[in-house]
Parts: sequence; C-alpha cells; structure tokens
Amino acid sequence: MDIMQASLEKHREWGGKIEVVSRTSIQDRQALSLAYTPGVAQPCLEIQKDPELSYTLTRRHNLVAVITDGTAVLGLGDIGPLAGMPVMEGKCALFKEFADVDAFPLCVNSKDTDEIVNTIANIALSFGGINLEDIAAPRCFEIEARLKEKLDIPVFHDDQHGTAIVVGAALLNACRAAGKKPEELEIVINGAGSAGIAIAKHLLHIGVGNIVMVDLCGALARDEHYENPAHNEIAAMTNKNCLHGKLADAVKGADVFIGVSRPGLLTQEMIKTMHEKPFVFAMANPTPEIMPDLAREAGAYIVGTGRSDFLNQINNVVAFPGVFKGALAVRARDINEAMKVAATKAIAGYVTDDQLSTDFILPDAFDRGVALAVAKAVAQAAIDSGVARLTVNPL
Amino acid sequence: MDIMQASLEKHREWGGKIEVVSRTSIQDRQALSLAYTPGVAQPCLEIQKDPELSYTLTRRHNLVAVITDGTAVLGLGDIGPLAGMPVMEGKCALFKEFADVDAFPLCVNSKDTDEIVNTIANIALSFGGINLEDIAAPRCFEIEARLKEKLDIPVFHDDQHGTAIVVGAALLNACRAAGKKPEELEIVINGAGSAGIAIAKHLLHIGVGNIVMVDLCGALARDEHYENPAHNEIAAMTNKNCLHGKLADAVKGADVFIGVSRPGLLTQEMIKTMHEKPFVFAMANPTPEIMPDLAREAGAYIVGTGRSDFLNQINNVVAFPGVFKGALAVRARDINEAMKVAATKAIAGYVTDDQLSTDFILPDAFDRGVALAVAKAVAQAAIDSGVARLTVNPL
Repeated sequence: MDIMQASLEKHREWGGKIEVVSRTSIQDRQALSLAYTPGVAQPCLEIQKDPELSYTLTRRHNLVAVITDGTAVLGLGDIGPLAGMPVMEGKCALFKEFADVDAFPLCVNSKDTDEIVNTIANIALSFGGINLEDIAAPRCFEIEARLKEKLDIPVFHDDQHGTAIVVGAALLNACRAAGKKPEELEIVINGAGSAGIAIAKHLLHIGVGNIVMVDLCGALARDEHYENPAHNEIAAMTNKNCLHGKLADAVKGADVFIGVSRPGLLTQEMIKTMHEKPFVFAMANPTPEIMPDLAREAGAYIVGTGRSDFLNQINNVVAFPGVFKGALAVRARDINEAMKVAATKAIAGYVTDDQLSTDFILPDAFDRGVALAVAKAVAQAAIDSGVARLTVNPL
Repeated sequence: MDIMQASLEKHREWGGKIEVVSRTSIQDRQALSLAYTPGVAQPCLEIQKDPELSYTLTRRHNLVAVITDGTAVLGLGDIGPLAGMPVMEGKCALFKEFADVDAFPLCVNSKDTDEIVNTIANIALSFGGINLEDIAAPRCFEIEARLKEKLDIPVFHDDQHGTAIVVGAALLNACRAAGKKPEELEIVINGAGSAGIAIAKHLLHIGVGNIVMVDLCGALARDEHYENPAHNEIAAMTNKNCLHGKLADAVKGADVFIGVSRPGLLTQEMIKTMHEKPFVFAMANPTPEIMPDLAREAGAYIVGTGRSDFLNQINNVVAFPGVFKGALAVRARDINEAMKVAATKAIAGYVTDDQLSTDFILPDAFDRGVALAVAKAVAQAAIDSGVARLTVNPL
C-alpha cells in the first residue's frame, strides 16, 4: 500500500488527529462548584478587572489557532476550507508533539479578505497566537498585515515565515560547512510567490550579500514595473546590480540557488556556471527543481530539498513549534523580525561543529530539543525587542 | 476559604481547564508522512470529493464550539468576551467529562448581531455543532435563528433550550410523583426573558395545559401590544384565558410556579392561594424566588431550585452533554423540537419509579449514565424527524 492510501486508512482509524480534553476532573458537587458555578465567577471577575489575567486563568497562555481558508493547501491548491482540515489538524498535532503547545484548527469559509480578517480578529481573544496556514498569495500578505496591525497577539503565516526561518538556518550552516560568509553570498531565489518573497526579506535581515529574485518572466529588477505590488516592493530591496535576464543568466557566478518554484527548472548546465562550492536548495514539492544526485554530479557542494527521503531536508517543523512556544512563553504581542532572526540562529546553532557536514546542515526534525532551543531564543528576542508582556524569560 | 477564592486559586493552578492533545504519536519520518505531508493529501482530496467525509477523516464528528459574546455571563451580566472564558472552558470540560464530547471555547469580540452571526457562520465548518452560551436577550434569539437558517449543523443556545429541557423533565416527574397530568396543568412562568420564553415554548411542545407568562409589568396577554416582539409572540401562544394582573393574581389556583426571575418574588401567601399539591421551581440564581423551606412550609408539594445545596437541583448538566452527544452521533443538521422533547422524556424516564419521590424528581447530575440515555433518545428523534445524516442510530 502506498503512503497516500496508508494515510487515508490511518485517518479513518484516528477519527481526528486532535482531541480536546479536560484538565480537571469533575466527579462531585465540590469539583463542579470550583470548575463551574458558582466558583468560576471569581476568575471571570478578575479577568474583567485585569485582562492580562486571561493568560493565567485560562488556557490562552499556551493556545494557538491554526487557521486556513483552504485556498493553497499543500501543493493541492484551492481545495476549500473543509478539505484543508486534515492538514490543519496535522499541524496542530505537530505543535503539541514537538513543543507541547495546544493548537486548534479552524477553517474559514470565505475567500473575501475583509471577511477573513474580521472573522479572525473577532475570535482572536480566545487565543495567545494565530498561525495562518495555506492561504493563497497575494491575499495572504494583506490578511497577515491587517491582522498584525489589529491584534496584540502574534500573527504568523507559517508558509512564509516558517519556511524563511529554516532556509535561513540552512544557509548559515551551509556557510559554516563551506567556509563562506553570509554577507558575501550572491543568492538567486527562483519563485517570487509568498514563500520566495518571505525568504528574500528574511535573508536580508540576516545580512546576506545580494539576492536576485527570479520568476517565470525573469529576474525582478527595480527599473521595471510589475502588476503585483509585492514584486515592486521586493525588486526595490534586491538585485543590487539591476540584473535582467532569465534564471540561467541569474545563476551565473551565484553562490546559492533557492528554489520555491517547480520541478526541473534548474539544470546541471546552470549549476556548472555557479561560483565555487555552490549551494542548491531545491524545495519544489514533491519533485525538486533538480534531483539531489544530479545536482551533486554537476558540482553542487551542498544540496537540500523539502523531502524527508533525501539528506538535508528543509522542514518547517524545526521552526514553528519553537517559534510559537517562545512567543507564548513571554506573552509576546507580535512575532517580529528580531524573533525570526533569533529562531534562525538558534536552529543553525543547534547543530554542533562535530555534527556539521555538507550532508547535515539542519537539526534532525525529530530531535525534541530543537523546539526548546528555538523557544528560548525567540522568547529572549521578544523581550529584547520590546514586544513581550513578560520581562523575564521563563524558559 | 470560601468557594470563590478557592476557585480562583484552582484556576491559577490549572492554567486552563481544557487542553488540545494529539491523538497520534509522531516519533519518526514514517509517522510524519502518514499524519502530515505527503500522506495527508489523500484525506484532503477525499473530503474535497465528498464533504460528508469530514465526519470520518477529521475530528468534526465529535466536536462542538462553545461560543459567547460575553454579554450575559452567569449572573454577572456584560463582563465582556475575555472575562467570559473561564465559564466557556468550564462548559467544555463538562462536555468532555459527562459525554466524552470534545468542546472548544471561543469568545467573539463584538456586540453587533451581524458580526457575530457572520463570524460564527464563517468558522462553522470546523465543527459538528455550535453551543451558544451566555449571550444577552434579545440578541440571542436573532443570532440563534439566523445561524439555524444558515448552517446545516446543530445550533443550540443552552441558556434557553438546555434549561427548558431540564425544567420539562422536572415537571413530568413532578406530575408522576403528585399524580397530576401534564395536559391539565396550569403553569405560571415568572420572568419573560430568554430562559422563560424558551421554557414556555418547550412546555407547550410537551403538551401542558395552560401557561401564563408574567414579567415585572404583569401577565403577558394576547390583547396587549409589547415593545419586545418576543413578548407578542409568546403572548399569542399562552394565557388561554387572557388573564391580566400581577404575579399574585396569576398564581391563584395555578399548579406550577416556575421562576427565572429574581430573589424573593414569590411569597408564602401566594403559594397558599395555589391549587392543591403545587410545584414551585424557584430558579433565580444564586438566591431563589423563595427559599425551599419557606415554600414547603406554605404548602408547596414539590420544590426545586438551581442550587446544588438543596434537593431537586434543576441543572442543565443533565441535558446539554447528552443532547449534543446524540446530535453528533447521527450527524444531525439541527437540534429540533422533537429532539428536545426526546431529551426531556429521557431525563425524566431515567428516574425509576423506585427512586422517584417529591425530593428526587431529576437524575443525579453525577450519574454518568444520564448523558448516554439522553444521547440515545436524541439521536433516534433526529433520525425519526428527518434531520440526521445517518439513518441508523449508533448509540
């Protein structure tokens, strides 16, 4: 039986991958009076007096909503909110398994940006943070930006920022393994969708040398005008030399290829034109821009993909559980750039010099220490950058 | 330490009364491939083809949202959505403890009916049912009615219908104990808010003789016009003899007093004017319309209150867990009158002739068999009344 059919069978057997349980046993009248009426009136009144107490008297302090509109689910596209739920439940299960963060899946049955923003904003008080998931571009940018503006809890579109954090960590450790300096890197990002743009912005915050964004029409340059405002914005921040041309032109002499595009777009010939010890992160799913064995054969020094069956998997699961655990731990109002950079550095730093090699640039996804290391760093960065409600890092 | 302070301490200790856990262990790549990518794509695609499969491939089949706007929390009034959360979490804990139903608390940060309706409707696909809670009248009527119209899952305002179901059961068993017939009862309901009106409608469905609704201005009668449209509606359905006058006039010769009003409104003198073997259900919280010892002294044959420290507690907890368990078990599209009547009869019938007495008219709230008995009856009624997606009762 293949993995798809096996997963379907398992889903039938599980009857849901998450469950809501009670943290208090209610076996007699005394217990009922404490957990419910009349006693429960007291915590209610305390929260009414001081809303911050919602973090100590309810589950909010450890609770994230995982929310989709079902418009960009995995590589399946716009399959609708109901059909997206197995992914959201899976994500919630990962939050709990990897970071002991409670996460609850919600699908929003609307494709209207205003409706989605209002719906999420209206229920946000129920949570300590919002993880947006599998929402199509360009809607995802506006939804996230408006929610970040409206809400005083973290809002984080994982498809953008989780991916960016892990790519950043992969890049830092590839530099360590290859003896290159991030600030000298020439980077090509192929695919100017939400993930590609988020990766570019994040790598600039890390301090890389130069990035050229390439989409199907070629390199994005500041002297061009694009229909998509996100493309104008990112063009203005990247491509220092105002290069024009296709992918083959852009990768010439580059140190890094980062693909968030489509299978087969990177050729061996292109790799052969890159700078010495090139890094190839070919993350198209399920089939990469170039298969790892071909990339190596063409001279790639370090190769990563999104797949678990190859070495150097670039997997969000080393990022999002710890990022939210850290943000929740200090009751952060936001997940800002400083916190994302801290997460990237924590993931990279978790790989020791002894472990580091061209085939091992990221921590094992199943190493349960990663999330805590990331959480500690993110919590501290939240405090240092002034977005934490708590002033002492409890982690 | 009094119960209020003790509850506050407990809430600090619990750090939330509910928790979201994973139902699948994800310890290695194979497990990750089944619960998440790439395998999870298959259940997604199956649900896209057949939305009903959301009931087998996600947690929806056992999942209820407990939703408030925080405008009528317990007896505390409009304390706001955030301050209402300890009650919502408590309710969710009760769902799990009493019926193994997963329930998740949500507070909606709006007092606008349209906003509340849209917000709930937009996330409804994530759940198998919606339990509305502690929403002020008259907004609660419109919110419930519009959601019932929009959604094809059960929507149930427990403060109205849960209360009505339990009062109905108490009344049926009081009749059994007193040798009276429901269809011959003359009933006075004092308090024409959402609970009083819901009780009146439900008792009419059970087939009681006559009901007179009384509020602060006196008996509601069909030949009067009221500002509140709900009062005109209920006046047209009740008060057969078009009685006018105050509570003292209404209770003269009546068999039953049902109070959902305020402390002290029923006097011993009034009880003395009632018909033989009168029932007094004085449910104002925390202080009843008349204290039970005074009611008995004045001749009340059966006395019930909302309080756990007196006999015959009229407590929603014998109703809502089983009602939703039954509705979920057959994937009901609605909780209709037939299902509510079935719940009332199941609760009443759970008390055996041997157990039944003037001091024991309702099942023990902590008897874990009640919810299942209610669920079985509600599920069957859903099938029989044509609102169930399943045609066989699995309970």
